[in-house]
Amino acid sequence: MDREEVMSRYQAVRAASLAMCQPLEPEEYRMQVVEYASPVWWNLGHTSWLFAQVLREFGGQVSEEDAAYGYLLNSYYAGLGDKIPRNRRGSVTRPTTPEIMTYRDSVDRRIQTLVCETSDELWPSVCEHLLIGMHHEQQHQELFYTEIKLLRAQNPPEFRVPYEDLIESDTEAAPIEWIAFSGGISRFGNIEGGFGWDNEYPTHQRFLADFEMMNRLVTVGEYLEFMEDGGYRNELFWLSNGWTGCQQNGWNSPLYWEMKNEAWHCWTLSGMRSLRPQEPVCHLSFYEADAFTNWKRRQGREWRGTCLPSEFEWELACRQTPANPMANFLDTRSFHPMAIRSGEKGMQLLGDAWEWTVNHYEPYPGYEPYEGFLSEYNGKFMDNQRVLRGGSCVSERSHLRPSYRNFWPADTRFQFSGFRLVRR
Amino acid sequence: MDREEVMSRYQAVRAASLAMCQPLEPEEYRMQVVEYASPVWWNLGHTSWLFAQVLREFGGQVSEEDAAYGYLLNSYYAGLGDKIPRNRRGSVTRPTTPEIMTYRDSVDRRIQTLVCETSDELWPSVCEHLLIGMHHEQQHQELFYTEIKLLRAQNPPEFRVPYEDLIESDTEAAPIEWIAFSGGISRFGNIEGGFGWDNEYPTHQRFLADFEMMNRLVTVGEYLEFMEDGGYRNELFWLSNGWTGCQQNGWNSPLYWEMKNEAWHCWTLSGMRSLRPQEPVCHLSFYEADAFTNWKRRQGREWRGTCLPSEFEWELACRQTPANPMANFLDTRSFHPMAIRSGEKGMQLLGDAWEWTVNHYEPYPGYEPYEGFLSEYNGKFMDNQRVLRGGSCVSERSHLRPSYRNFWPADTRFQFSGFRLVRR
Amino acid sequence: MDREEVMSRYQAVRAASLAMCQPLEPEEYRMQVVEYASPVWWNLGHTSWLFAQVLREFGGQVSEEDAAYGYLLNSYYAGLGDKIPRNRRGSVTRPTTPEIMTYRDSVDRRIQTLVCETSDELWPSVCEHLLIGMHHEQQHQELFYTEIKLLRAQNPPEFRVPYEDLIESDTEAAPIEWIAFSGGISRFGNIEGGFGWDNEYPTHQRFLADFEMMNRLVTVGEYLEFMEDGGYRNELFWLSNGWTGCQQNGWNSPLYWEMKNEAWHCWTLSGMRSLRPQEPVCHLSFYEADAFTNWKRRQGREWRGTCLPSEFEWELACRQTPANPMANFLDTRSFHPMAIRSGEKGMQLLGDAWEWTVNHYEPYPGYEPYEGFLSEYNGKFMDNQRVLRGGSCVSERSHLRPSYRNFWPADTRFQFSGFRLVRR
Amino acid sequence: MDREEVMSRYQAVRAASLAMCQPLEPEEYRMQVVEYASPVWWNLGHTSWLFAQVLREFGGQVSEEDAAYGYLLNSYYAGLGDKIPRNRRGSVTRPTTPEIMTYRDSVDRRIQTLVCETSDELWPSVCEHLLIGMHHEQQHQELFYTEIKLLRAQNPPEFRVPYEDLIESDTEAAPIEWIAFSGGISRFGNIEGGFGWDNEYPTHQRFLADFEMMNRLVTVGEYLEFMEDGGYRNELFWLSNGWTGCQQNGWNSPLYWEMKNEAWHCWTLSGMRSLRPQEPVCHLSFYEADAFTNWKRRQGREWRGTCLPSEFEWELACRQTPANPMANFLDTRSFHPMAIRSGEKGMQLLGDAWEWTVNHYEPYPGYEPYEGFLSEYNGKFMDNQRVLRGGSCVSERSHLRPSYRNFWPADTRFQFSGFRLVRR
Repeated sequence: MDREEVMSRYQAVRAASLAMCQPLEPEEYRMQVVEYASPVWWNLGHTSWLFAQVLREFGGQVSEEDAAYGYLLNSYYAGLGDKIPRNRRGSVTRPTTPEIMTYRDSVDRRIQTLVCETSDELWPSVCEHLLIGMHHEQQHQELFYTEIKLLRAQNPPEFRVPYEDLIESDTEAAPIEWIAFSGGISRFGNIEGGFGWDNEYPTHQRFLADFEMMNRLVTVGEYLEFMEDGGYRNELFWLSNGWTGCQQNGWNSPLYWEMKNEAWHCWTLSGMRSLRPQEPVCHLSFYEADAFTNWKRRQGREWRGTCLPSEFEWELACRQTPANPMANFLDTRSFHPMAIRSGEKGMQLLGDAWEWTVNHYEPYPGYEPYEGFLSEYNGKFMDNQRVLRGGSCVSERSHLRPSYRNFWPADTRFQFSGFRLVRR
Repeated sequence: MDREEVMSRYQAVRAASLAMCQPLEPEEYRMQVVEYASPVWWNLGHTSWLFAQVLREFGGQVSEEDAAYGYLLNSYYAGLGDKIPRNRRGSVTRPTTPEIMTYRDSVDRRIQTLVCETSDELWPSVCEHLLIGMHHEQQHQELFYTEIKLLRAQNPPEFRVPYEDLIESDTEAAPIEWIAFSGGISRFGNIEGGFGWDNEYPTHQRFLADFEMMNRLVTVGEYLEFMEDGGYRNELFWLSNGWTGCQQNGWNSPLYWEMKNEAWHCWTLSGMRSLRPQEPVCHLSFYEADAFTNWKRRQGREWRGTCLPSEFEWELACRQTPANPMANFLDTRSFHPMAIRSGEKGMQLLGDAWEWTVNHYEPYPGYEPYEGFLSEYNGKFMDNQRVLRGGSCVSERSHLRPSYRNFWPADTRFQFSGFRLVRR
Repeated sequence: MDREEVMSRYQAVRAASLAMCQPLEPEEYRMQVVEYASPVWWNLGHTSWLFAQVLREFGGQVSEEDAAYGYLLNSYYAGLGDKIPRNRRGSVTRPTTPEIMTYRDSVDRRIQTLVCETSDELWPSVCEHLLIGMHHEQQHQELFYTEIKLLRAQNPPEFRVPYEDLIESDTEAAPIEWIAFSGGISRFGNIEGGFGWDNEYPTHQRFLADFEMMNRLVTVGEYLEFMEDGGYRNELFWLSNGWTGCQQNGWNSPLYWEMKNEAWHCWTLSGMRSLRPQEPVCHLSFYEADAFTNWKRRQGREWRGTCLPSEFEWELACRQTPANPMANFLDTRSFHPMAIRSGEKGMQLLGDAWEWTVNHYEPYPGYEPYEGFLSEYNGKFMDNQRVLRGGSCVSERSHLRPSYRNFWPADTRFQFSGFRLVRR
Repeated sequence: MDREEVMSRYQAVRAASLAMCQPLEPEEYRMQVVEYASPVWWNLGHTSWLFAQVLREFGGQVSEEDAAYGYLLNSYYAGLGDKIPRNRRGSVTRPTTPEIMTYRDSVDRRIQTLVCETSDELWPSVCEHLLIGMHHEQQHQELFYTEIKLLRAQNPPEFRVPYEDLIESDTEAAPIEWIAFSGGISRFGNIEGGFGWDNEYPTHQRFLADFEMMNRLVTVGEYLEFMEDGGYRNELFWLSNGWTGCQQNGWNSPLYWEMKNEAWHCWTLSGMRSLRPQEPVCHLSFYEADAFTNWKRRQGREWRGTCLPSEFEWELACRQTPANPMANFLDTRSFHPMAIRSGEKGMQLLGDAWEWTVNHYEPYPGYEPYEGFLSEYNGKFMDNQRVLRGGSCVSERSHLRPSYRNFWPADTRFQFSGFRLVRR
């Protein structure tokens, strides 16, 4: 990719991070609601810090303040020096948010200089790392929306404000159809080429049995049947860890659901509103998706043998199915997954909601982490997490692809996470 | 007290709370560093909330938003409705700080109306509650300084900023003298009249043996001897709970001390600076004061039989000793306890640093909590805390008196807390 | 005391420790139900270990195994070498119980030799330390009963066995009378002479106001009124720490109470049986006693101004009141406090149940801990505990006296702890 | 299988459980050292309880005491009624161990009756469940040895006793060879037939790439190189969760290793002895095996691309490799993995030490849990655990097979767990 194009994409990504902060009050930049959700200022700083590492690695300008900011903004790279403990990000009051913005500007100016001045020999490496940095920043943009949603939900009801206007919708959900796929040996991972994370490699062969997959995500209405049938009270539907989590956290519905005046409502980026039975259920942990599945298998012959898809079944289906032109990504600004209409093309695979798969997050056979300072990016987290596929209504559309692997601990609920079933 | 005078004092107290916030950045209003230290916005709101209770109780104007603010700003009054858990104050981002300021204004306007319009019959009660509210706000003003000191200390070294300019001082500490006091039966509690908290009543008689008291607070230099003699490593000097705390928290010096280039420095509201051996040691837990005492008793005949004073020995001494005109209170803006000069009048009893006494915080015989909505103000905390006496360099001068009882858990270090010894 | 008499008392105390273990199964010697309750084997070993320290200090025979046993059996003496963490006592399976018994025998034989052979010069010191060791062992004998009670309560209902036969009783409780005492200056502490712990010294003067004290302990029936009036559900009656403990531990009755077939029962050393309304309520925390008091003060004029006694009021009353010949101690083998009959002499002050006082456990003015290896016996625990007075139905009668100070954290419930009220 | 043969095997399995307890003292039956290790009495009871469920299900005699024992001995079956919390098993002192033995006898007698008297129609089901119960008891026999090893290690060094005599060994470890296997599509799971757990089904096809596997387990000597090269101090070798665990638990060697007189020793069932560099390293967590692998990959070309095997690579290798006649199982009574000699047949796959694989424990495609009361046996634990294959020196030989899947959380170290590497 030539320098101009890279620089133009760089500026677009960086500008998008600032644009999404426009509706925030100064108070909202600093708060760390829970340890796993970072403050906005930190996301803005950390994404810049990664570019500062590129500067350092490839002979760009180093600034006096890089060291102090490095301590603050290094997320988890043991190879890149000391860092503030993760759970202390929320207790930092200086640098102020304007100072962070100034640091972003400083990094941007220095990146521009690097792009102009680096040798042709180094350029491919610089370019590769800049692209990684941009995709990294897009990941944090998606996190921004999930974190702001959580942040605003913490306020007492009278003080909760929406981030965006509500989009009304009266779409009916398409009825369930089972779409058949042929198994056999296929190649998996980033076989399309283009950008991919190290965890999408090496591409490799796997054998799958034939399977059928639901044509859309499980809906709120379908999930309510599980709830009404005592789903949250019957230990027999649950994984052991799931039941423990359910009890300890007092789960009795997906995250953000609230019963008001005997009707379920949910907190969205457009404020508190009534649940829509036809829209995909989301903000579920893996454990809830799994418990639903175990309940559903007992609901009659059609459901016997259904289960969550493997990440490879999902990937195969995604590769063989036309994209749905009505899918929701960040640019459609629905900020919530929406129902797929009957007859709509596609299977709601990309966009709307991340889909839990049955798989733990593991390295592909022959996996090698990035060389150099990014070696810790993905590999060290391949333990006790589950893979999600497909992206969500707050993902940047260009950021997604069939081989993209997202991953979270099985009890995570603050992402836009839903699910569907397969049968074999 | 007449209405005008009350209103004028009210306005002064309320203005002082705003003035002290002038040097803060928006970021600094919201952070709750530890559960026991509240964010600035909350202190500003909570002190107003107490006045809103006065409005409610005495027929003042009630505002629509009182209920929602009540949930946020009620500290610990079970009798006054639901409240947000204390450890969640730092996760609230709305109402914003400007909205809190607007709410303060609304309360002030309504208080003004109440003061003007309340009947002569009700006035004494209204007046009494307003005075309580003002003293309450002064308590929170003192907390403000200790919380801001802690808040700014959390930032990485490169991003720590002072609150106030440094006052240089080369005063030598007065040598230790033992001032003799005669015991016998005396009356204790708020016998001077004037404002007093319920925990200073009833006044009552106690018998004390004769005693001698140090003429000043223990200094940094004296405390360093304890440290250099292994004070933090020898379990035999410590209370059992103190040793456990010392180990668990890794204490090896008072709070805010830091070794840089082989010299001790300390973090102050005027920034990081060298320790001054002659100034009173402060930011000590009761356990450290007690361990020093146990060490000191073994340092030769003069010290045999020394110990921390009882709160009644302190009160008697304070009552019988002229005030030191050079003592430091909030208005002297030293923001740190300072050495007492040889020949200076007084014993450094009021101001500079709170003094740990040997006593747990208990009710006086016949103690009755306030009637009505303030009944929970003091009594329910009379358990497993220690009494401190005297006030500090960040106390409002008019807020102190011989019978004033402050109290904190024995492991508290973020207050300006020091100590002295007595012998009998 | 002459050597023969000491030796005879030594043997009696040591034999009593073995006798009380007779009804135990091998399983019951080893279990540590909670960190604060030690296994029986450990009590048997630890009391011997203290005598092994006397041997070491005064030139008695040292055994090869003393070092290994010292690590196991040292409770909390930092000055006497390393020790196994307290919470690990229950995980030790070797030495076996018979090996512990063999070690006891070894210590006994060596003590006998020491008593015979020590010089006249050393004898007074040896004698003093042996007496301390015996009183210490009597303290652990009392703990034995409270720990076995707790241990057996842990078993599922079908497998709970009594330690002793039940004593039936249909005594009516004496009606409440208020006994008047005159205050003024009196001397407190172990003024009778005879054995006393270091925490009963120095004797010293205090001033008390006149007061009246209940003629007996608060009964189960009286406590049930508190419960039925919502005592465990109304935060306004509770100390702040007490309410937190009440919520966290799910307290809704004293320890060992159980509702069966709509009637309250309680677990005793004689098995599970119906509650007797006339007997003293016991197995209460200080917090529950205090909450009852705050509730009771609102129950009419007679109760206004009542509160828990100070430890000095209790001591004065005990000194001025004839002992009750019907009181229950270990030798009466009731193993539970019993009702005091109308017209019975005495005020149920010694025996039956320990009585919570309002006081935190603090040193008397001029307190000095024991010299030498026992210096850690009492002093380092004078922090955040409450004083109890009087002894209980499982105390050795000869072990008690007016100046005896017991102390436990305010949330302790496994001791035979009750309370009474005073008014002034 | 006919009734006589089943009964004869039943009696052999039941007798083996008692025989292994012979060397224990009464103290050792009751202790629960950590929550995940059950007391011996409980294992003896729980294995009987499973047979009591067979009695209940198939019309055997029910005993009065079954209900009370059920509460105590149910491990985790939500469908089979209430149960004592797992972490409370160690606090139970009644029923005594002899009472548990009596209950075992009662179950055995009733099982004998059931086997004799059940109808021919029911027999196949009864037989299947009895076999499950026997295999289940063999699993607990293996646990017994790991728990006794842990239990005895808790005692202070002077009081640690071996379970069995030491077997000396001076075998040299065979040098590393890489054995090649061809991939392609194969069938996995219990394809040999015979007994298998539900988690070994359904048999199904998978595709594997060609791979090479080490001819033996990694040795102590090889692991020491990792340690000496700072393996426990370099975060870059570790999974993120592994590093956290390493820090929190202070790991700096495998479990049971102890440095004495500057030489490594290890605690074994034959007592404390010197490490033997040639024997397989064991008592490692998955995290340590993984960290070793990440370190080893950097040790030169031979090691580049090596990693832990997948459970399917291991299964394929096991199926295609002759068993090693010198392997250690329970019956060889080495009680510790031993070195494989050069030229020895086989690859040390079955026996000696369980081998960590790279895989999380997941259901095979189309997995169905057992029907009926055993439905909770395996499925609900398929979350955040890792698969181990092969069995150990304390496994019953007949209990193992190529498709056997063991599983433990990645930080587990008290099992006899080792590992080997593959390369592709």
